[in-house]
Amino acid sequence: MKPIKIGICGLGTVGGGTFNVLMRNKDLIAQRVGRPIEIAQIAMRRPNPGCDTSGVSVTDDVYAVADNPEIDILVELIGGCETAKTLVSRAIVSGKHVVTANKALIAVHGNELLAEAEKHKVQVAFEAAVAGGIPVIKALREGLAANKVHTVAGIINGTGNFILTAMEKKGSSFADVLSEAQALGYAEADPTFDVEGIDAAHKLTILASIAFGIPLQFEQTYTEGISGITAEDIQYAHELGYRIKHLGIARARKEGIELRVHPTLIPEKRLLANVDGVMNAVLVDTDAVGPTLFYGAGAGAEPTASAVIADIIDIARGIDSPHHMPALGYQRPLSNELTVLPMDETETAFYLRMSAADHPGVMTQITRILSEEGINIEALLQKEVFEGEQFAAIIMLTHKVKERAVNNAITAIEALDDVNGQVVKIRMDHLEHCNN
Amino acid sequence: MKPIKIGICGLGTVGGGTFNVLMRNKDLIAQRVGRPIEIAQIAMRRPNPGCDTSGVSVTDDVYAVADNPEIDILVELIGGCETAKTLVSRAIVSGKHVVTANKALIAVHGNELLAEAEKHKVQVAFEAAVAGGIPVIKALREGLAANKVHTVAGIINGTGNFILTAMEKKGSSFADVLSEAQALGYAEADPTFDVEGIDAAHKLTILASIAFGIPLQFEQTYTEGISGITAEDIQYAHELGYRIKHLGIARARKEGIELRVHPTLIPEKRLLANVDGVMNAVLVDTDAVGPTLFYGAGAGAEPTASAVIADIIDIARGIDSPHHMPALGYQRPLSNELTVLPMDETETAFYLRMSAADHPGVMTQITRILSEEGINIEALLQKEVFEGEQFAAIIMLTHKVKERAVNNAITAIEALDDVNGQVVKIRMDHLEHCNN
Repeated sequence: MKPIKIGICGLGTVGGGTFNVLMRNKDLIAQRVGRPIEIAQIAMRRPNPGCDTSGVSVTDDVYAVADNPEIDILVELIGGCETAKTLVSRAIVSGKHVVTANKALIAVHGNELLAEAEKHKVQVAFEAAVAGGIPVIKALREGLAANKVHTVAGIINGTGNFILTAMEKKGSSFADVLSEAQALGYAEADPTFDVEGIDAAHKLTILASIAFGIPLQFEQTYTEGISGITAEDIQYAHELGYRIKHLGIARARKEGIELRVHPTLIPEKRLLANVDGVMNAVLVDTDAVGPTLFYGAGAGAEPTASAVIADIIDIARGIDSPHHMPALGYQRPLSNELTVLPMDETETAFYLRMSAADHPGVMTQITRILSEEGINIEALLQKEVFEGEQFAAIIMLTHKVKERAVNNAITAIEALDDVNGQVVKIRMDHLEHCNN
Repeated sequence: MKPIKIGICGLGTVGGGTFNVLMRNKDLIAQRVGRPIEIAQIAMRRPNPGCDTSGVSVTDDVYAVADNPEIDILVELIGGCETAKTLVSRAIVSGKHVVTANKALIAVHGNELLAEAEKHKVQVAFEAAVAGGIPVIKALREGLAANKVHTVAGIINGTGNFILTAMEKKGSSFADVLSEAQALGYAEADPTFDVEGIDAAHKLTILASIAFGIPLQFEQTYTEGISGITAEDIQYAHELGYRIKHLGIARARKEGIELRVHPTLIPEKRLLANVDGVMNAVLVDTDAVGPTLFYGAGAGAEPTASAVIADIIDIARGIDSPHHMPALGYQRPLSNELTVLPMDETETAFYLRMSAADHPGVMTQITRILSEEGINIEALLQKEVFEGEQFAAIIMLTHKVKERAVNNAITAIEALDDVNGQVVKIRMDHLEHCNN
C-alpha cells in the first residue's frame, strides 16, 4: 500500500526521538499500520547530531512543511505557542492532519484549533502532550469511555516529582535539590514552568476536558508550585503516614468541577505515593471501573516519541475513513453546564503547621478558631520544645472542609499573639476509593 | 443520528453490568459516540433481578440475536467455548460486529474466529477478556504501537492475587484462605481455572499475541498455579525483600518468546509487588517508553462492563468506515518467525528452599552441585535449627539461569542423603528496568 507521508517540524529532543524510533521500528510499525510511514520532510533550525537524516528532504522553514502537498500528517515538535499556532493552523487549513506534543498550545489555543480542524475534516492529536509515554489520553477518551469520571489525579511533571523524591530521600532543601536536578538535566535553567506547576496545569486542563467533556480552560486552573515545600514538612508528613506529591487534580462535584495543581499529602500506602523520581502516573476514578492507574515515563526523547508515533499510527490506520473520534472524546459542542469552581469553594483535607508559644491556653485558642469555622481535626502532632526555644511546632491534619473556611481560620490564627509567623497550609487527599 | 443497535447475549454478572452501565450512562455515551447505543435485544436463560429489562425485546435463544437483521453488534457474554464459538461465528457470517469478554474463546479459537471476521469485514473486539476494566489491550495495540515490546508481566487473575495477599497478611495457609475467598464470592466452588493459572494463561496468550505479533497459542503457554505456595515461603521471601505474586510473563528473547504463568518472587519495592487483593496490573516494558504499568479492577460486573462498552463505543465511532484496526494489532498474516521457547530454555532467577541435615559438609555438597550446573547464588538464608530438629531450612536465591540447569541441580540435590524431601522451586524476576 501507498506510504503515509509525514513532515516533522522541529528536530530537538522529542523530534530527534521521534525520527529515531520511526527509523528503528520502521518495519514493525508498517506491519501494525498495514502500510509504511515515510518521513517525507524535516524542518529544523540546526542538525541533531543524534539523527542521521541523510536521504530525507530537509528545510529550515516550518511553513514549507505545512504547504507541502505531498504530506499527509504534519508533526509539530517546535514547542512554544506563537509560531506553533500559526503552523498548526496553516497545516489544518491545507487539509493536513496534525500531531503535536505541545501541551501549552493545546491547553491555551486548543478550543480554537480543534474547531478549525473539525471544519477542515482533519485530526489534531496530542497524546504526547500529557504524561509523555503513558497513553492516558487514549485511556480516558476511549478505554474508559463508558464511565462517568469522578476524579483524575496525576503526577504529571517529572521534574517536580524528581525534586520532591530527592528532598524526601536526602532530607535536603528545595534549593539544593533544584540545583542538583539542573546539573543532571532534569530541570531547566529557568525551572518556573515545572516547579510552579504551570506545565502540570497545561496537562491537567487537557485531561479534565476529556474526562468531563468541558472546553479547555487553562485560565480557570488553580496553580501552586512546590518551591515553598520544606524538608521539615516532608518529614512531618512522613511521621503521620503521608507523602507529599505535586498533583494535578480534576474532580467532578455536584456543584461544579475542581481544577487544581498543588502539593498534596497522600497516604503513603497508595500506589500513587510510591511513584518516584521523574516517573509520572495518572489515577482515574470512575463510576463503573473504580480506580485505575496509568504509570510510566512522563518525559524524555523516546517516551514522548512513542506517544507522538502512536498518534501518527492512529491517524494512518484510519486515514481513508471519515473521522469519528472526537479529539477531546466528546462530539461538539462541548457542554458549558459544568463550571469550574473558584478555589474558595473546593473541598479538601488540610495539613497545617504553625509555630506557637509553649504555654497552656494556646491550643485552646487555636482549636476554638478551627471549631468556629467548622473544621475538625483528624490528627495532631505537637513537637517537643527544646531548651532555649520559645515556640513549638504544631502540626494538624483536618477533615475535609471548604478552602474558604481554612483560609479564614488561618487569618485568625496568625493574628494570635502566641502564634509566631505564618501558618503553613498543604492540601491533603486520602484518595479514598483506591484500594492501593 | 441513527442509533447503533446491539444485542446482548447472556445477562449474568457481566451481562447485567453491561446492561446497567449502558442504561445509566446512556446520555454520556451518546455524546461521546455521536449517536445513541440502543439495546435492541437480550438473550437470557433467566431474568437478572438487578436489571430492569422492561421495554427491551427478550429471547431465550442466543441465535435469534445472531440472526436478527436489525442488530449491528452482538455482545457475547454467555461464557464457555462451545455455544459461544458457534454463536460468534454465526454473528460474523451474518455481518455483525462482535464484542466479547470471553478469554477462553479468544485464546483457544481466536485465530480461526478473527480470520473469519476479517473475511466478512466485521470486527471482533475483546478488551474485557484481559484484566477487566483496565484498557490494556488498547494500550498495547494502539497506545504503545510505536514500540518493540520486551516484556509483559501481569497480575491478571484477581482470585489468585486475593489469596496470595491474604496468605501474606495473615500468615495463613493456601487452603484456609481459599475457603475464605470462596465464602466471600472471590473464588468459585471449583477454583481450578483461577488458582491453577489457566485463566491467567488465557489472558497472557492474548496479551502476547498483541505484544509480539504472533498467533494466539494457548497450548504453548506454560501454566503453574499457586496451590503449592506455603505461608513459610511467603515469609522467607519477605525476609529477603521480595513478595510472591502469581504472574503471567511474556518475554521476547533473541532465541524466541517465553510464555509462562507461575508464582514469582519480585522485589517488594516494585509497584507491581504492591498491587493487592483482587486488583490487577499489567507491566509492559518496551524499547522506546521503558516500563509502563496499567492498574485497576480485573473483574466484577461493572469494571468488566466498562471494557465491553469501550469496545462497543470504538466500533460505533467507526461503524461507517472501513476497518483498519487489526484485532491483534498487526495486519495479517501474523509472523511465525518467533517461536515460543520450551520451558527448559527459559531464563529466570530462582528461589530454592530445601531441608538439609544440620552438619558440616552439606552446604559444600549443595554448592558444588549448583556450581557444576553454572548456577550462582545471590543470597542465602540458613534458618536456625531448634532443639530436637534434625533438619534446617536453607533458602537460596540464584542469579538468572536456564530452567534446565536448575532442574538438573534439584534432581542431584534431592538425591543427597543429607537432604530431606523435595526442593521447593519458585521463579524470581527482578523486573530490572522498572524504577518503581
